[in-house]
Amino acid sequence: MHATASETMERLDEGIADLSRFRDQARPGWTREVFSDPYRDSRTWTVQRMKDAGLEVIIDNAGNIVGRLAGRTPSAPAIVTGSHTDTVDGGGRFDGIVGVLGGIEAARVLRESGTRLDHDLLVVDFLGEESNAFGLSCLGSRSAAGELTAEDLDRQDYRGLRLGQAYTQYGLDPNKLTDVPWARQRLKAFIELHIEQGPTLQERGLPLGVVTAITGIERFIATFTGSADHAGTRAMHDRRDAMVAAAEAVLAVRAEGCGAPTHGVATSTRVESESRSPNVVPSLVHMHSEVRSVDPTWLSGVKGRLTREIAAKAAESGVDVEFDWSTDNPIVNADPGVQDIAASAADTLGIPWMPIPSGATHDAVHMATLAPMGMIFVPSKDGKSHCPEEWTDTADIALGIEALVQTITNLDGPAGR
Amino acid sequence: MHATASETMERLDEGIADLSRFRDQARPGWTREVFSDPYRDSRTWTVQRMKDAGLEVIIDNAGNIVGRLAGRTPSAPAIVTGSHTDTVDGGGRFDGIVGVLGGIEAARVLRESGTRLDHDLLVVDFLGEESNAFGLSCLGSRSAAGELTAEDLDRQDYRGLRLGQAYTQYGLDPNKLTDVPWARQRLKAFIELHIEQGPTLQERGLPLGVVTAITGIERFIATFTGSADHAGTRAMHDRRDAMVAAAEAVLAVRAEGCGAPTHGVATSTRVESESRSPNVVPSLVHMHSEVRSVDPTWLSGVKGRLTREIAAKAAESGVDVEFDWSTDNPIVNADPGVQDIAASAADTLGIPWMPIPSGATHDAVHMATLAPMGMIFVPSKDGKSHCPEEWTDTADIALGIEALVQTITNLDGPAGR
Repeated sequence: MHATASETMERLDEGIADLSRFRDQARPGWTREVFSDPYRDSRTWTVQRMKDAGLEVIIDNAGNIVGRLAGRTPSAPAIVTGSHTDTVDGGGRFDGIVGVLGGIEAARVLRESGTRLDHDLLVVDFLGEESNAFGLSCLGSRSAAGELTAEDLDRQDYRGLRLGQAYTQYGLDPNKLTDVPWARQRLKAFIELHIEQGPTLQERGLPLGVVTAITGIERFIATFTGSADHAGTRAMHDRRDAMVAAAEAVLAVRAEGCGAPTHGVATSTRVESESRSPNVVPSLVHMHSEVRSVDPTWLSGVKGRLTREIAAKAAESGVDVEFDWSTDNPIVNADPGVQDIAASAADTLGIPWMPIPSGATHDAVHMATLAPMGMIFVPSKDGKSHCPEEWTDTADIALGIEALVQTITNLDGPAGR
Repeated sequence: MHATASETMERLDEGIADLSRFRDQARPGWTREVFSDPYRDSRTWTVQRMKDAGLEVIIDNAGNIVGRLAGRTPSAPAIVTGSHTDTVDGGGRFDGIVGVLGGIEAARVLRESGTRLDHDLLVVDFLGEESNAFGLSCLGSRSAAGELTAEDLDRQDYRGLRLGQAYTQYGLDPNKLTDVPWARQRLKAFIELHIEQGPTLQERGLPLGVVTAITGIERFIATFTGSADHAGTRAMHDRRDAMVAAAEAVLAVRAEGCGAPTHGVATSTRVESESRSPNVVPSLVHMHSEVRSVDPTWLSGVKGRLTREIAAKAAESGVDVEFDWSTDNPIVNADPGVQDIAASAADTLGIPWMPIPSGATHDAVHMATLAPMGMIFVPSKDGKSHCPEEWTDTADIALGIEALVQTITNLDGPAGR
């Protein structure tokens, strides 16, 4: 395996470097957002990468790039792997990319080693997984799962452009997005290789994680309404300051996250005052926050607690607050069978691993509606992700690919039947 | 005096209603920002209003509208009154306007009552007193005082337009703004009638305030730098969350304001995260705050305390912070002689009054460099200002105008010599 592993590492380094050249030069980091010019250009590269690895490539109606390694039995349900190659604004070079390049590499290794699978292997580069200007993530896997709705297509970005129009401008027919034949067939399993995006594997000194569940995400916008008074003349005791109430709420969100018993995080990402004036007490402030956990009891509990705590604190300042909660993702458990197969693949190869929850969401959430789903994590240096410093050692990615190849083989072979 | 007072009140109601029609229909309240079309249109109305009151009107090189009621002695220094007619975004119908309409009315009352002043009386509608998109207030009075600098003209708004360009587009020569002959002559006094913009007069049940000092304003932008990590995967204890540090700072600013011993307020008006992503821990957040007081000891002390407290709290979260402090206005005391004359005018008329600090800044700050300065306040309903609910009863404004007329008379006559 060592000759192959060294070739794998060379191809990975080269692939990551090639792909990172497709980026928005006007933004920090490696910015390649869905529908952007750099993203469009990068997809030609990905198609070629798949073809070079010996895959038959189609682009489906959802804009996903799908490479097929034909199996021996045409009627057998396909094994699917893959991830995405778009990045967030100011993002890095590994999130998603490792799963696409890793999937392609796994197919190449299988083909070049003479291993003929019984099942088809599909390697998918899903369209636009990251949250975008329309506030909707996982566009391609959502479409494949038949979950993209007409309401979703009516979502507007800050310029008033509708998501449906963005699809049309990109060259995809918004009426055909969920018409994805490969996803309508019975599928054997979906297994996604991904960077952890957190520090746990590095802290434990382990090269591999087998994902147990993908976090649920509850997002909310709290709108604080106080009184717009002159900031120079209104006495402190007599104010209804919406910014002060929002600040208390940011700290309440943080405190809830810190109090999570097993797994849970809580983050406020934006606080926006509607006033443009530097000398008016803020009267209308919006706070954007989210809570995540794989623990359903905590996740449902925190929603009620935060609503009560924030409203009570705001009332002390004479400020009203309204909440707009939305479930961005429910908690999705990985299939126990696929978890076992991935774990035994790691054991077979002698790669130390741990069961791990995923604090980030993935295309796997939507693929889980179509097939038994599992994920394999490789370590993220210092747990950093969605930033230019995002890094995973090539050797760790190569170990992940070995585990992916073995998992696919086990899913295909006797252990997977 | 009662027939006159009733005519004054009718003309005031009509004038305030007329002027309030010049507003930006796309914005809430009565929005008439400097350089805007509604503002430009309103100035034609103001010129006519002055002419109707019997004043000779010029527009000076700074864009101020100056109405002159000629005195008996051409060589005597002019008595100046006035204020401004621009409003903040979403503002009201009284801030500034009361001082302009009141000054015009005072001149009319003096003329129509046959009182011939020894000194010229100038009634000025100063250009753009409110803070604007360029972050500079008191444009007209600043120019009159010769304080508008080349650096000021280089200030840019959010579109990148320079203040100098805005002046040119408005039809004023940016090279001549401080060439204001009437302000280069020796002036007898400046007395400004204004709404209190706070609740003190209403709370004490008093119709008049004689201003003792105008607040100093220290503004700062605190920039918090943390670490941009994935909001789903980075454990709470391991974060460097710039938004949390900013929230702590908002509360620290509030606490300092609440601890002011005599007169002081502290306000945070904006908190802005540079990240657009809903799932990244905020790493770069700017907070805009200000502190105000007429107490120089507290005002200089709070600057040091806030810098230390905010930095210490941020350090607990592993967040760095940098401060950009700027003095928007130093504390300006009203001239004791003018205060005495205004107070004795109120006493002569039997109008109850109190000495009062001004928590807002005014054109009077800049006029104080040219002439002994005083201000007369009338009550603001519920202390509201810079909002559509801003209100002062016409009867209260009329009392203020009576006091203004008497103050001008006393400044002109034996008591003022």
